[in-house]
Amino acid sequence: MRKLLIPAALLAAMTSQAQTRSISGFTENGVRQQQNLESTFDSYLRAANIDSGIRIMSSHPHHVGSPGDKVVVDYIYNQFKSWGYDTRIETFYVLFPTPKERLLEMTGPVPFKASLAERPLKEDPTTSQTDEQLPTYNCWSPDGDVTGDLVFVNYGIPEDYQRLERMGISVKGKIVIARYGHSWRGIKPKVAQERGAIGCIIYSDPKDDGYSQGDVYPKGAFKNEDGVQRGSVMDMPIYPGDPLTPNVGATKDAKRLDRKDAVTLLKIPVLPISYHDAQPLLAALEGPVAPEEWRGSLPITYHVGPGKATVHLKLAFNWDIKPINDVIATMKGSELPEEWVIRGNHHDGWVNGAADPISGQAALLEEARGIALLTKTGWKPKRTIIYCAWDGEEPGLLGSTEWVEEHASELQQKAVIYINSDENGRGFLEAAGSHALEPFMNEIAHDVIDPETNISLAERRHARELVNAADGGKLKASMFSKKALSLSALGAGSDYSPFIQHLGIPSLNLGFGGESPGGEYHSIYDSYEDFRHFKDPTFIYGVVLAKTAGRATLRMADAALLPFDFRSFYKAVGNYADEVMALADNLRESTALSNQLIKENGYAYAKDPTVRLQTPPIKEEVPYLSFASLQNALSALEKSTNRLADSLKRHPSGPRVQAINSAVYKAEQQLLSNNGLPRRPWYRHAIYAPGFYTGYGVKTLPGIREAIEQRNWKEAQEQIEIDAAVLTRFSDYLDKIVP
Amino acid sequence: MRKLLIPAALLAAMTSQAQTRSISGFTENGVRQQQNLESTFDSYLRAANIDSGIRIMSSHPHHVGSPGDKVVVDYIYNQFKSWGYDTRIETFYVLFPTPKERLLEMTGPVPFKASLAERPLKEDPTTSQTDEQLPTYNCWSPDGDVTGDLVFVNYGIPEDYQRLERMGISVKGKIVIARYGHSWRGIKPKVAQERGAIGCIIYSDPKDDGYSQGDVYPKGAFKNEDGVQRGSVMDMPIYPGDPLTPNVGATKDAKRLDRKDAVTLLKIPVLPISYHDAQPLLAALEGPVAPEEWRGSLPITYHVGPGKATVHLKLAFNWDIKPINDVIATMKGSELPEEWVIRGNHHDGWVNGAADPISGQAALLEEARGIALLTKTGWKPKRTIIYCAWDGEEPGLLGSTEWVEEHASELQQKAVIYINSDENGRGFLEAAGSHALEPFMNEIAHDVIDPETNISLAERRHARELVNAADGGKLKASMFSKKALSLSALGAGSDYSPFIQHLGIPSLNLGFGGESPGGEYHSIYDSYEDFRHFKDPTFIYGVVLAKTAGRATLRMADAALLPFDFRSFYKAVGNYADEVMALADNLRESTALSNQLIKENGYAYAKDPTVRLQTPPIKEEVPYLSFASLQNALSALEKSTNRLADSLKRHPSGPRVQAINSAVYKAEQQLLSNNGLPRRPWYRHAIYAPGFYTGYGVKTLPGIREAIEQRNWKEAQEQIEIDAAVLTRFSDYLDKIVP
Repeated sequence: MRKLLIPAALLAAMTSQAQTRSISGFTENGVRQQQNLESTFDSYLRAANIDSGIRIMSSHPHHVGSPGDKVVVDYIYNQFKSWGYDTRIETFYVLFPTPKERLLEMTGPVPFKASLAERPLKEDPTTSQTDEQLPTYNCWSPDGDVTGDLVFVNYGIPEDYQRLERMGISVKGKIVIARYGHSWRGIKPKVAQERGAIGCIIYSDPKDDGYSQGDVYPKGAFKNEDGVQRGSVMDMPIYPGDPLTPNVGATKDAKRLDRKDAVTLLKIPVLPISYHDAQPLLAALEGPVAPEEWRGSLPITYHVGPGKATVHLKLAFNWDIKPINDVIATMKGSELPEEWVIRGNHHDGWVNGAADPISGQAALLEEARGIALLTKTGWKPKRTIIYCAWDGEEPGLLGSTEWVEEHASELQQKAVIYINSDENGRGFLEAAGSHALEPFMNEIAHDVIDPETNISLAERRHARELVNAADGGKLKASMFSKKALSLSALGAGSDYSPFIQHLGIPSLNLGFGGESPGGEYHSIYDSYEDFRHFKDPTFIYGVVLAKTAGRATLRMADAALLPFDFRSFYKAVGNYADEVMALADNLRESTALSNQLIKENGYAYAKDPTVRLQTPPIKEEVPYLSFASLQNALSALEKSTNRLADSLKRHPSGPRVQAINSAVYKAEQQLLSNNGLPRRPWYRHAIYAPGFYTGYGVKTLPGIREAIEQRNWKEAQEQIEIDAAVLTRFSDYLDKIVP
Repeated sequence: MRKLLIPAALLAAMTSQAQTRSISGFTENGVRQQQNLESTFDSYLRAANIDSGIRIMSSHPHHVGSPGDKVVVDYIYNQFKSWGYDTRIETFYVLFPTPKERLLEMTGPVPFKASLAERPLKEDPTTSQTDEQLPTYNCWSPDGDVTGDLVFVNYGIPEDYQRLERMGISVKGKIVIARYGHSWRGIKPKVAQERGAIGCIIYSDPKDDGYSQGDVYPKGAFKNEDGVQRGSVMDMPIYPGDPLTPNVGATKDAKRLDRKDAVTLLKIPVLPISYHDAQPLLAALEGPVAPEEWRGSLPITYHVGPGKATVHLKLAFNWDIKPINDVIATMKGSELPEEWVIRGNHHDGWVNGAADPISGQAALLEEARGIALLTKTGWKPKRTIIYCAWDGEEPGLLGSTEWVEEHASELQQKAVIYINSDENGRGFLEAAGSHALEPFMNEIAHDVIDPETNISLAERRHARELVNAADGGKLKASMFSKKALSLSALGAGSDYSPFIQHLGIPSLNLGFGGESPGGEYHSIYDSYEDFRHFKDPTFIYGVVLAKTAGRATLRMADAALLPFDFRSFYKAVGNYADEVMALADNLRESTALSNQLIKENGYAYAKDPTVRLQTPPIKEEVPYLSFASLQNALSALEKSTNRLADSLKRHPSGPRVQAINSAVYKAEQQLLSNNGLPRRPWYRHAIYAPGFYTGYGVKTLPGIREAIEQRNWKEAQEQIEIDAAVLTRFSDYLDKIVP
């Protein structure tokens, strides 16, 4: 037999392929340098620093305007300074209400007064800092003093009210009690107010957030009977940031709205309570038994209400203007200082905020320290890196929104990317963002190793997805091969929102979770003690976050050719278009069937005559919408994205590259529509937005999707044309990048 | 234009069609007579009689062997006698254990002793008859005195143990606590025993049966904290009836097994408890938090266990032989006295049993009274009608099984049909039975009018199905036209079981429900007070049951040509064959995928390393089974059933008819397999059986289906051949009915 000889060159190539992965945007040489740089970076990162960072920054309550907030700001400022960053504090002046009076009581056979207090625990020292803590409240509730019947509205989302209507129950003139979950909290009072309610109580049911899920704090991680979720109820789906200064930075002398003209402020008082305080209120309700899906885990029969007892809710707030302090730390780019890679995490908490946001903030600082150390080796980033520690995220993305609004035009010129993080814990990589960055994030997710399993983040997440599918009986053979990480779309809920949705700056949101559940969120129990027991006891996922977001920052800062791949964007938006077309079709079919069932008396015949249950109303039939313009736009987009990708494969070099890069990172701005979304022009991105009735939850192709959901056919057709025009403009723009 | 003239004959036909429905098996003249007869019958029925019947028969506890049982027997006997039936009492002598000692306690930090008592209520007089009540217990539990760790096993069905295995928890040597639901209760101790447990506690969780569902008794219908579900835990999927006399009637001098040789008796002690008694036991458990689907509505964190405390369960019983009394009331057929239409309902209760079984028994008596009154008009049934009031159904279908075993050969000659009922309430017709009777039941369901909506039972049920589909988002246009009522297949759970499954006698089970939920089942709260408040306050559904089952009885008794249509049977069994083929295919695919996931370390990579969770074991790959013989048999069956139906359309008359009828009603006996089902030869029906691991729940094509579920491929192939042979024999038999 002849011996098989492998040519030396081929052998070298094979070895090289086995040893080094490619990194998009880097030359062959660049890849090796970058890998060395990242290895060095990794070697600097210390879990002990994450630990001490969380301990220090969460040692006292540090909400907006508090002494603790200033201590944290100074700590962060001094850290950046000490590592050589050009650091400054940018201060804005925002409206920020804090409680002056809180009263919730029930008259009736058994009078009851809610405690409205979270009990300090001897096992957790910082829970005793009562004087420094913000009381439990929903920020931006108006002052109010209302008395009325109580009605239980489940999660308080629109479909719950449809159910109430079928039960013949109106909330007009009543106080509603809703449970946390299934929507961003601000949606609950907003929908209640639209339906005529005069007050809103939000409680944490132990089924969703309490003893049903596991042992309660301090024995376990879950919400104990005293825990209360604070949080903002500003109508952020209209616009986030200071309610008095939409579209502009809330600088000292900015022009301010009158509070009564701020459309993001609700009109009815809202108060969050514990399940300990909720139980007597719910137990006093009468009326229909709540539908099965509405029932929580309290040891009572859940009724919808009202009952014999009357509820009295009285709230008053200090409506002060408070300073918020963003810490901005810059490392100037050596070659392209006017191209900015921005990396941020907020620093304000509702109370001590060890997990939210300090776990993310500590990881960001460790990452920044590592990158600063790299400069000692002689390395400098090509592009400018800017670290941002935002204030006032909790009340409504105040620090980031005001900063973005203040620097809008400069950011639209210079910002290559915004990379966000927030709360972090043990578990799996959760990545969301602009879909042109999906291949970029995939490379990173395959390069970073999970510390618990020693496989890549991407492989571990894929394993989780397969096991979830298997557990749900939905595993398919085709799933094994799809190891690529899908980016989720960005809704709202953290500081990326103004960057991507108002300015069209490509954004990512990164974090770890899935093995660190608990009930501490926005309570006094989100503490260092809680964190080190239940969230990330070895702080190793803080290090992994630093490695992951650090790689994103370093690669974006140094890439020769910016690693955007718009074919991934095309794929994502194509799927969204399929979804909205299916949504219209399904709605047409279900409407026709429902109307037929009503006309044929199906509901009347099926119902128990002893139970008061209304037949649903006949709905307007769903017309056929023309999606042709959108489909044609998508067809053009596919060609344009392929053509651009092919051009870039030919490795452009020289002065052309800078023009290409500049065009590439600004491309997403072409996805902003001229007038923004209907009734909320601050939101300009045509593809991604938080839902008008979901809050945090994203709506993709929001103009079209929400018009269909709201059965506004005229607007749906208009929005199809608008989005088609936006996508066509975007394709034209891409076509001109490489002439 | 020419005037359209409708010929007089056609006009007459149209009118006739509009006014009278056809009744299968009756001539045109016969239909009119039958309709008049049924109208007269309806006019005799009185809700007041149902009311008083329930009140009288439920006035005292009347379980097997009790003084109350004898009172009820005498009442029923006297009623039938007074209406002119040839009435007799048939007595059998059966083993029937009653509690002598019951102790359940927990040692440990907080010692606890279970109350094991249901509290009398001043609102409900019969609940105070404590001396006459059977204590709360599971009948057929052995004597036992066991002490051990406690483990929570959810519903205690096989898949729950697979989950426990993944959690690394064994029940070997432990006492298990299972919640009621998701299987017949007897399956829970049976599976626990197979897995090595030494005792079994069964409790009612308020999520499934208690305050989660609605207000508790006496304010509402649902189970209060003291309510306990008594019930049999005999291994009835092996055989029902007296454990000591399988296959033969338990007459005074029947040959009896030694108790230790009775395979339907379990070996580990079993006790049912209330949720009040269960809470301290469950709260003391430690170990893993129970999976989300396992958690009930008690205000605790559900752990799987074990805990630090030890549980002690001690039970002792009086193992007496007791008499049971079946009341058999006969109205002799005028033309075909040797063809029997049998109609039955049991009379024994666990306690007062107002709903179960007296609501059905009272309706049966009213029906029998109505039919007796018809004879005053000169009418006589062509065939013999036999009313049966069974004793000993609750402990294990004792009265019906012993009677069926005693009269087996006569029944196989003479029984045209067995029509069963049991508990009854407000709501919708629930009909199950031999599928050749589906068109027959449909005619009745279209002829009887629902009293709440004034449409037919079939139309109302169809409306309910449409609304359910709409509520679940599963309404399809094709559903509107399918107004036919589908018969469910018969599993076990009431007295039809020996008739159909042991002898192959065509059977029906009829009842109403769906608007009368509650938690009274097998407790002291199943009382007249409970019934008249929550089950059928106007007793009108008792009348509707009498109308429905009465029509079935009358039509079967008088039909010229017996109304069996085997095309419906073919359709049903064809669907079952499709299901078992899909089951094998799905199991093959899911096994291959699961094995691949295990081999690729998916479970290991996905798991939280701080949680003890085992990778599931590799399973044997599923081979392809040959279904060819079954498919060929079905193909022949389709032809045979169509051919027979075509022949019968030609209205055979004269002496041939009797031979045809006789062959038709005995046809189902051809579906008995020679050796019965594997490991349970008492069950001989090849198409319907209660599940070996579900109990009440039916398994269709049980030999094939259960072999596949148990991954016994050799047996699955054997059973395919057996069922194919049975169906082929059945087709051959049908082919010979009309030569």
